[in-house]
Amino acid sequence: MVATPTKSLTLSEFLALPETKPASEFLDGKIIQKLMPKRKHSIIQSELCTAINQVAKPLKIAYAFPELRCTFGDRSLVPDLVVLEWQTIEFDPEGEPTDDVFVAPDWTIEILSPNQSANPVIDKILHCLNHGTRLGWLIDTSDRSILTFSPNQTPRLYADEQPLPILDKLILLITPIQIFSWLKLGQDQTSP
Amino acid sequence: MVATPTKSLTLSEFLALPETKPASEFLDGKIIQKLMPKRKHSIIQSELCTAINQVAKPLKIAYAFPELRCTFGDRSLVPDLVVLEWQTIEFDPEGEPTDDVFVAPDWTIEILSPNQSANPVIDKILHCLNHGTRLGWLIDTSDRSILTFSPNQTPRLYADEQPLPILDKLILLITPIQIFSWLKLGQDQTSP
Repeated sequence: MVATPTKSLTLSEFLALPETKPASEFLDGKIIQKLMPKRKHSIIQSELCTAINQVAKPLKIAYAFPELRCTFGDRSLVPDLVVLEWQTIEFDPEGEPTDDVFVAPDWTIEILSPNQSANPVIDKILHCLNHGTRLGWLIDTSDRSILTFSPNQTPRLYADEQPLPILDKLILLITPIQIFSWLKLGQDQTSP
Repeated sequence: MVATPTKSLTLSEFLALPETKPASEFLDGKIIQKLMPKRKHSIIQSELCTAINQVAKPLKIAYAFPELRCTFGDRSLVPDLVVLEWQTIEFDPEGEPTDDVFVAPDWTIEILSPNQSANPVIDKILHCLNHGTRLGWLIDTSDRSILTFSPNQTPRLYADEQPLPILDKLILLITPIQIFSWLKLGQDQTSP
């Protein structure tokens, strides 16, 4: 439980290090490597990414990126999924998004795996909110519920068929039951 | 993971059932039994209770109760620790506190054990806040941090030597490092 004392790094020293897999994050002078994602985590991450991009990309409203490094407020975090509004996305001269992002994402999504301690993950969401993020989701795979965070508000828990809050500009009706039904990989689907 | 369909109970039907150990809680028509507390959970629960009562009881400001059943807002919850301001405590004709409480506690404290899913525990804190509780703590034993909740505010994470928010009327300077040092049961204490 006790971290081995190591020389504290600066943010720029951290950013100069090679990327790791799973990604490493930098906060309060410490490097913390993300957990290897479990299968349920991966399914929700990729299905949700697809669901958001299906409505957000054609109209150039926003784009959802899995595992995008976002560096701001003296931390470098890699949320499970971030959604950036289109005008926030920086493109390089080839017209492709630049690798790194130096702003808080508009929407940050974390997926809590069983056995993963909750507070550090919530802390990542709060750091985003304190730096301009307008919406945070904490998906708890073991409880089948989603806790949502908005600036200056008490969080709210959503379960079953409650429509979840999403970014204002997006038109997407999505409920916890839909999200967790993805875990069945298309078997037993009740909706067409 | 899927709950067996059972006849949904009313709150008064639930309250008429005998108590269980660990306690059972009632929410949204369902009975959910609390987890058997792990040893670290028990130590923090009892030490924190003692620490609060040492300052709160002599002046009749407030009192901390472990495992007190609080029934309000169509739920019957048993937080790990609640603190009630003195004037909120109902006494029976013998001058002893009544068994049950039908108001939201002034301060609710939950201790998250490793492997315990976070959202249901946070949901209990949010239910309290939505019914008048002014302060909620979520103690994460695996991260050694404490997430605090206040009405209409984004939660805040406290770690190490950051003084924690407590009820206004109490005078108690307490930090996460002190709380988690209780786990050492008096060995290796740095403070006298």
